[in-house]
Amino acid sequence: MKLARYGEPGQERPALVTEDGGLRDLTEHVDDITGRAFEAGLMDRLRNVDAATLPRVEGNPRLGPCVGDVRSFWAIGLNYTDHAEETNAPIPAEPILFNKAPSCIVGPYDDVVLPEGSTESDWEVELALLIGKRLYRASEEEAAAAISGYFVCNDISEREFQLKREGLWTKGKCCPTFGPIGPWLVTPDEFGDPQDKGLWLDLNGKRTQTGHTSKMIFDVVHIVSYLSRFLILEAGDIVTTGTPPGVGLGMTPNVFLKPGDVMELGIDGLGSQRQDVVAFPG
Amino acid sequence: MKLARYGEPGQERPALVTEDGGLRDLTEHVDDITGRAFEAGLMDRLRNVDAATLPRVEGNPRLGPCVGDVRSFWAIGLNYTDHAEETNAPIPAEPILFNKAPSCIVGPYDDVVLPEGSTESDWEVELALLIGKRLYRASEEEAAAAISGYFVCNDISEREFQLKREGLWTKGKCCPTFGPIGPWLVTPDEFGDPQDKGLWLDLNGKRTQTGHTSKMIFDVVHIVSYLSRFLILEAGDIVTTGTPPGVGLGMTPNVFLKPGDVMELGIDGLGSQRQDVVAFPG
Repeated sequence: MKLARYGEPGQERPALVTEDGGLRDLTEHVDDITGRAFEAGLMDRLRNVDAATLPRVEGNPRLGPCVGDVRSFWAIGLNYTDHAEETNAPIPAEPILFNKAPSCIVGPYDDVVLPEGSTESDWEVELALLIGKRLYRASEEEAAAAISGYFVCNDISEREFQLKREGLWTKGKCCPTFGPIGPWLVTPDEFGDPQDKGLWLDLNGKRTQTGHTSKMIFDVVHIVSYLSRFLILEAGDIVTTGTPPGVGLGMTPNVFLKPGDVMELGIDGLGSQRQDVVAFPG
Repeated sequence: MKLARYGEPGQERPALVTEDGGLRDLTEHVDDITGRAFEAGLMDRLRNVDAATLPRVEGNPRLGPCVGDVRSFWAIGLNYTDHAEETNAPIPAEPILFNKAPSCIVGPYDDVVLPEGSTESDWEVELALLIGKRLYRASEEEAAAAISGYFVCNDISEREFQLKREGLWTKGKCCPTFGPIGPWLVTPDEFGDPQDKGLWLDLNGKRTQTGHTSKMIFDVVHIVSYLSRFLILEAGDIVTTGTPPGVGLGMTPNVFLKPGDVMELGIDGLGSQRQDVVAFPG
């Protein structure tokens, strides 16, 4: 099953994505696509819904972030061997954890705004997932069962803010618009093996990132189980699981985003995103 | 004005704290004490309420965290000159930012549970604040106006998880029960100058931390304005602003928490907390 959210920012409505790519409105069945809705049994309710009976969404509305009411936005760094190498970082012995701000989340086709003073903003196509159940000290089986769906995330990163402004990586990871997610959330049964998916990112039509989730150092189920040893994951948390090689920081010389650039990125089975890069204040 | 939340975990009700320390139930006036409630005009509503007309809370109920529905839990590291010195860290040129998980938040008198495998859990009395309005690129005046209240936070930290397990500080800062907040939220008009407050922590009845907010490297209003240059602060975010000297990591030899320990901590005008330290699984 593919789920999406459509409409103006902050007023998105839930929808089912049909085989032909159309949207059917789900407002009568659920308020929003959130981790808490999954926790409250969303899948049981939707399983009995005949898509043909749902109102067709007319026109071509904006797609919002595919998950609403995100609680914490967890992120894993350096999780592909070849990406660690391109950034001259050692291969981590354990998953590297950092945070993005939920307030940086935007829709898959929204503009990405370079923050004032940004000279080193960079792209990162990533496989992300939604937690649909509270987890603490979860086994890998329990972790797998708590994943409500998968989606594409562009973990945009301002390298100067991230690496040269004191204080961990957070400052470069949280800028407004630095977290496009979507276009859809795809449920695990439909997505299949998360460790057997290609992912890619084009900058201005030129392929810059090419990767495969089989090259992850820590697989997604391990990551979720691992995080739950340190903290309680809550229904509504999302986790993005690291980027493959091909980021601007790994190029010689470095290449960073500038106004007018276009990023297109996707993952097998999860669809693709497209963002125009615009100058502050946009 | 002092506000609190009382009742069993997850079912706390809002209350006004009267001059004599008693509680008056606010359920008829507000659902919960949250950043979003402040954003929606909580103070305007409460200003017209006569405390004497509110139902008295009988008995001696548990106090919960003084803020509900926390969105992001931001934290500043090494913000007192003398604490930076005791941990052998250089004085930061800009505020050091990290995250705690909202899921680590507990009430001011709840037990603190040492996570399994913890050998280096440490205490940190801190001045924390609630953001009651969305902020981005805020001036210091705008930042000050967006602070809805102040409260005590114990930023409990597992140093081995924080410093030796890869990945920034997050893993040692988010363990369940590692974020007691309260007992009350005190509104800025009643609290007065946040840079003129003493703070202290006793371990097993012995004074271990003594500090004064005049010794902060970055004052609280600067911190809020500064963070808003990098990210959107949302109504419901809380920010804890760093700890003064006297943590276990700064002692020779190091001293860390063990089951049976008792922490008591407080800040001028904000009341005090008391936590029993218990072994996992508690």
